[in-house]
Parts: sequence; C-alpha cells; structure tokens
Amino acid sequence: MENQQNNRVEETTQEKFPLNEELTQEIVKEIQTLQEKGDREGAMAVFSDLHPADQGEVMEALSIETQQEILTTLPPHEAAEILKHLEPENVAKVSEGVDSSVLSDILKEADSDVSADILKQLPEQQSKDVLAAMEETEDVVSLLQYPDDSAGGIMVLEFVAVNVDMTAAAALDALRLREPEVEDIRSVFVVNDEARLVGSLSVTRLALARLATPVSDILDPEILFVSSDTDQEECARVMERYSLDQLPVVDNEKRLIGVILSEDILGVVNEEATEDMYKLAGIGGEKVFGPLKTSIRNRFPWLSINLATTFLAALVISLFESTIARMVTLAAFLPVVAGQGGIGGTQTLTLVTRSMALGEISRRGGIRILSREILLGLIHGIFLGITVGLVAYIWKGSYMLGVVLGIAMLGNMLIAGLSGAGIPLVMARLRTDPAVASAVIVTTCTDVAGFLLFLGLAAALVNFL
Amino acid sequence: MENQQNNRVEETTQEKFPLNEELTQEIVKEIQTLQEKGDREGAMAVFSDLHPADQGEVMEALSIETQQEILTTLPPHEAAEILKHLEPENVAKVSEGVDSSVLSDILKEADSDVSADILKQLPEQQSKDVLAAMEETEDVVSLLQYPDDSAGGIMVLEFVAVNVDMTAAAALDALRLREPEVEDIRSVFVVNDEARLVGSLSVTRLALARLATPVSDILDPEILFVSSDTDQEECARVMERYSLDQLPVVDNEKRLIGVILSEDILGVVNEEATEDMYKLAGIGGEKVFGPLKTSIRNRFPWLSINLATTFLAALVISLFESTIARMVTLAAFLPVVAGQGGIGGTQTLTLVTRSMALGEISRRGGIRILSREILLGLIHGIFLGITVGLVAYIWKGSYMLGVVLGIAMLGNMLIAGLSGAGIPLVMARLRTDPAVASAVIVTTCTDVAGFLLFLGLAAALVNFL
Repeated sequence: MENQQNNRVEETTQEKFPLNEELTQEIVKEIQTLQEKGDREGAMAVFSDLHPADQGEVMEALSIETQQEILTTLPPHEAAEILKHLEPENVAKVSEGVDSSVLSDILKEADSDVSADILKQLPEQQSKDVLAAMEETEDVVSLLQYPDDSAGGIMVLEFVAVNVDMTAAAALDALRLREPEVEDIRSVFVVNDEARLVGSLSVTRLALARLATPVSDILDPEILFVSSDTDQEECARVMERYSLDQLPVVDNEKRLIGVILSEDILGVVNEEATEDMYKLAGIGGEKVFGPLKTSIRNRFPWLSINLATTFLAALVISLFESTIARMVTLAAFLPVVAGQGGIGGTQTLTLVTRSMALGEISRRGGIRILSREILLGLIHGIFLGITVGLVAYIWKGSYMLGVVLGIAMLGNMLIAGLSGAGIPLVMARLRTDPAVASAVIVTTCTDVAGFLLFLGLAAALVNFL
Repeated sequence: MENQQNNRVEETTQEKFPLNEELTQEIVKEIQTLQEKGDREGAMAVFSDLHPADQGEVMEALSIETQQEILTTLPPHEAAEILKHLEPENVAKVSEGVDSSVLSDILKEADSDVSADILKQLPEQQSKDVLAAMEETEDVVSLLQYPDDSAGGIMVLEFVAVNVDMTAAAALDALRLREPEVEDIRSVFVVNDEARLVGSLSVTRLALARLATPVSDILDPEILFVSSDTDQEECARVMERYSLDQLPVVDNEKRLIGVILSEDILGVVNEEATEDMYKLAGIGGEKVFGPLKTSIRNRFPWLSINLATTFLAALVISLFESTIARMVTLAAFLPVVAGQGGIGGTQTLTLVTRSMALGEISRRGGIRILSREILLGLIHGIFLGITVGLVAYIWKGSYMLGVVLGIAMLGNMLIAGLSGAGIPLVMARLRTDPAVASAVIVTTCTDVAGFLLFLGLAAALVNFL
C-alpha cells in the first residue's frame, strides 16, 4: 500500500516541465495533426496533459474555433485556470462566439482579477450579459474601476483578513472558511475594528501558535502597503527593494482591499523593462510575430520624425557645399564625427534612462550625473580625437585636416555627454517619460553638432587644409 | 487594555515606508549632520528606525569607517539583516577592517546565501578565518561552489522537507523545529525515502488539516523544479511562466537542495533586462554614480570598434570622391540614407533580441521573423523612398537625384530588416549572446550599404544628375 502510494506520487510528478517555445510548437503540431485526422478525443487528451500555463500558450496558437471548442468542452474550473495565462484581448476575441452563460460559468471559477481583465475587453453588451449571469459579482465589479497598470489593476482579492482581537484559533477558522481559494497565501492580514490594516501574521507562525494565543501577540506590525492608484512600476520597485512576497493594497481610509503577489509582479517587471527598451529604439507595444499593421503603426512615426531630423543634418551640410567643393575629401569624414557622437550619446542616454526607471536617480542627483557624463565625454573625446586626427593625417596627408577632425570629435563627445544626460533629466523634470523622445533629440544634437563643428572648422581653416 | 494594544500596533506600523531615493538622501544628510555635531547616539537612533533595506541603502552612502562602526555596534542579528541589502563587494570592502570574530558572529545570523555571497568576495585569508570562527558552516560551504548566476547561486537553504510517510502532526513538528528561520515559507516540500522530491504541501493546507492526516493525502504532486546549474534567467522565466512563488532546486539525483523565492527573482529579472539593454548600447555593468574608470573601461572598447567601422564608411565615400566633386550637393544627402537604415535596423534588432531574451522565439521561428522584417523594410522603404525622393527633387530641383535617393533608401531599408533580424539569429545559432556585438554589425551594414547604394547609383547616373 505504502509503496503503491509512492509510485502514484512519483508518476504524477511531471517530467515534461518546464516547456520551452520549441516543445510548445511541437505540441501544437501534434494537436493539429490529430485534429486533421478527426481524432478530437486524442487531441483533447494531449491538451489535457499540459500545465494550465502551457495550455494557454498552446491554445493561442490554435484556430479561434478550436479555442472556443476547448473552452466550452472543459469543466469550468479547468477552463478558468487556463484563462489566467491567456492575453485578455485574445480571450475577448474567442469569447465573442461563446455563449454568455458558458462564459459566466467559467469566469465565476476564475480569480477575480482575471475575470475583471477579461470583462474589460468584452463588447459592452456581452460584458453586461455575462455579469448578469454570474452570481456574487461585487468583487469583480469592484475591480473593473482600476486602470490595468495600477496596484488596483494587478491586485488579487484572494486574501484573508482577521481582527486584531481574535485568537489564533479564530484566525485559523477564518482561513478555513476561504479554503481552497486561499491555499497559496503566506500571511493573513490583521485589521482593527475600523477595518484598517495594522499588521500581518505569517501562516507558518499561525499554524505553530497555541490556539488560545491572541493574534495581537504574534502579528508583525511592520507592514508596508500601497494605495490602489499606485503605479505598477512603483509596486514592483517596493517589492524588490524590501524583498516582499506580497504587498497589501489599501484604500484612502487605509482599509485593506487587495494584495499584490510577487509571482504576478514578475510579469510587470519584464513588461516595464521591455517597454522602456522599445521606447528607446522607437518601437511600441509590438510582438515579434504580431500583425504587420501594428508594427508599421508603431515604427513609422519614429522613422518619419527621424527623416525630418536627417534633413536638418542635410541642411547643415548643404550650408558648407562651397567648402566641400574646395576639398572633396571632407565628405568622406562626415560620418566619422557625427557617428561617434551618436554612439557616445546613446551610451549615456541608455544608462541614465535605465537608472531612472530603476529608481536609482533622485531629483538632486542631476548635476552630479551631468558633470560626470561631460567629464567622460571629455576623456573619450581626447582619446578619440587624437586617434581620428592621426589616422586622417596618415591617410590623406593633411596635417590641418587631422587637427580639424580631432577638435570636432572632442567637441562632439562633449555634446554627446551633455545631451545624453541632460535631455532625459530635463524630460523627467517636465514630468514626461524620458524614454520616449530622448533618443531622437540626442542623435539630432550629435548629428547637427558633429557636422557644424567639423565643417565649420574646416570652412574657417580651408585655406590651410 | 485592549485599546492600549491597538494603539501599540497602530503606532509601530511605519508610515515612512516605502522610502524613495530622495528621502534616502535626506536621511543620509541628517545622519552626517548629527555625526559632525558629535552626536553618535542621535545618528544611530535615526539609523535604527529604518527598515533593513533602507539601512543598507543609507549605509552605502556613508564613509567606510562609519559603516564599520555600524556593523560592529549593532547586535549581530540586526547587522545580518542589513547585509542582505548591501552589494557583496561593498561588504567585502567594509569587512577588511572588521575583526574576523565580529564578522563571523554576523554571518552566522545571516541567510546562508547572503553569507556565501560575501565570503566569496573576501580576501582568501580573511574568508578562511571567518569560516573557521563560524560554527556549523556546512550549509554556507556547500553554497560557495555555485556560480552567482545559477540556480545554486540564488537559492536559499531556509526550506522544510518532510517525508511522504509522515502525518500532518509530524510535518508541523518538523516546521516547528526550524522556526523562526522559516517563518516566511509558503509550502513544505515532500520527499520520499531516497530524499527525492515528490511534491509540495502548502502551509495553509497543512495548518487546516487534521493532525492524523497522512501527508501523502494532502500533498500536491505536480511540482516543478530546476537543477542547481540552471541559469538564473531560465529560473526567472519558469517562475514567471508558471506563476510560481517558489521554485525548488534539486541535484542530479533529484534530491532537494534549496529553493528560489519569487521575491529574490525580481532582482534577477531587473538585472538581466538592464544587462541586455546596456549590451545593446555598448555599455557594461556600470552604475550611474559608479567609478569613472569602470565606465571608461566599459565604453571605450565599443567606441573604438565603432570608430573603425566609421572609417570603413569613410573609405566607401572616399571611393566616390570624383562623383561628389562633380556634384557637391550629394554630400548633403549622405547622412539621410545611412541614418534611416541605422534607425530601421536598430528597431528590428531591439525587437528580435528582446524577444529572444524573453524566450518568445524558437529556433524554427527564424525564417518567419526574417521574412516579416524584410517585408516591413520593403513597406517602410517604399514610403520613405518616395518621401525622400520628392523632398530632394523639390529642394535641389534634380529629378534624377530624387530617383537615386529613393531607390537607395528602399534598398537600405531592406538591408536594415535583413541585418537587424538576421544577425542576432545567426549569433544565437552560433551560441553567442546576440545582444553583445549585433548592434555594431547592424549599423555597419546599414552605413556601408547606405553609402554604397546612394553613391554607387549616383556615380552610374552622374551624367543625368
């Protein structure tokens, strides 16, 4: 008997986990092949074997009709588990063909934050129908009010609050009432008679306490919390800084209304990092396999703005056509000074905007960063200036050309440091997102300054070149 | 009495949390002012009021001597809490002036993974002395063998494993033996007689079970795990994908050796995103307020490589000096074609490398991405080519110049899509990090191709310009 039990346990410990992108695609193919052969049961069996997170991934690769079939065929609580791992927009698209009563059965079983995200994406009439068919919808309805990227939008309602005057036994009973929904919680929250948060109590400590122990004797009163309108990026920062596995969310009256879990915030951290990275490169919320239209809509504006700035650079060069005509070799060196400035500016810009996003820069740190980056520009400029001057002299044999190039390089590296650090700092002061437009401004600065410095000096000294 | 208790609880619930960078700096100033006045006790009182995470941040802004004083003055268990929030390199620097016996008292109280990280950074002799003064060091010594960025390097040893044949009562006793060290755990792990992992059991479920219930009846057998040499980035991916709040780490025999907590992985996710972002921009592991030497060592190699590539571009232009001499106005348009190609290539490159880092691209997805990006290059190239051609025609009045510019623009946007997607894909195939050198190769491609296309066409058609 005992042996058998052990076997059962070992067998069900899945060895396939974790799936990667490649395995997922193989499983998608397997299911599609079975479907084409008409073996619906076989396809469903392969699907059912997977972890809900993988089921979500696989589902999104299947046709809308198949997705609808899966959602309607599965028991509601299993379908609900999958929903957590699907993009809400995708669920909304699939749901349009699913009966409202079926959908409400599934959403009833899903976590309240998942249901709320999906309801927000549904067409208005369907959303109303589904809500009407669900019972006890206050929870979900209360979540519908929060923006997606706020603490309210990412918190869950699966928490347990106990009164500070209770005993451990009563707190355990309160926990029991909510099982199995709250099986994964680590702490119960402690509130006073006005429902205000006063502390937390780890489930381990509660489990080990004598039943008659007052909760007030064993709670941890040092508790961090955020309000429902706190930005999700700030929530992630607090949780990382204080190593929190959960972060309670309170309303204006400091009454507990939800909790953010660290496993949910992981997605937020990745999402925010991706967003910042893409903004710097001038792409928006697109996916590598997403629709072409989205990519064009995201990239084209940036490409157009950049085109305008390169014409500005062209205009600058154009002013010096007579100088270039006298010494055509100048044209060859045009990309050198501007290009190096662009690289240097991007280095500084990337460091400064990322440090801002990670909360490492205070408002007062600006001057220090600016002077540090200008100093770096000076050092790099001296080295690069000497190198570029020597190469040009050796290559073209003009001593003066080397001097002009070297000085222009030094000047442009200073501009790179100044604009790379200064522009995001100014943007932040103006309370606009420094990641968005900084890159185009910085490269315009280094391009225009690079051409002006190089050609301006050359024009002044053309008789000596 | 009851009322009094409530008050106590409310008073100690800190309202200062969470600190941001600005508040931290104010506190640093306050402490420094008190120190200058000779009020050491006052300074210590302000410091002691803070959360350990903030104490760490404040400490790193104080002088080495003050840091040493704090570590020696505080009770070891409080000092140990702070260590968790300091950079290990900084602790090592501070520790060089601290007596080995004091340090060993502190490290004894710290989490095993924190102690191991610090011991790794200490000078060899001091590390040996400290280890010798610590008792029960097997845990820490066992952690010293794992690389910092592997599952073994980020796991903690504060977990509880129970045998599958135990009852709930025995499991609770096992938990009690490790309290308060394991107060924050959410699940105990279940192992068989060979110490192999067979499941997990949430503390909530355990707390609510009848004491005589066998653990095998209430455990969750579906458990994910990684081996100690799994890369930390992969661990973060698994935890995010499967919404895990903890991830067990096993050895080759599937014996449980540690656990990774989701609150610790938050730092990993941010760290890896920063690293990728910095690599793309050609900066390394530098900090916005870090030493200048590190910044120069990180940025200069990239600036030098880039200088070499701009000279390559200069060489290309140089080949067409006679063409430019015949029509100097060509020089003005040099940055236009190359610049747009660079922006387009960077857009594609950023999307592809980030998607790779997030595990969204399988090995087979390459062709699809490549054709998608070339198609986007074609679409953008047509629009930008027509625009740039028209502007050049209107500005300079040469119909042929517009045609040359337009065609070169189209060609270079195709190159941008091809190289922006193709180069990171090839790098990944060659098992090198696509983030590192891709950017310089892509911009070199678009620069050289841009000048070659534009000037080559112009040279061929110079008689019609």
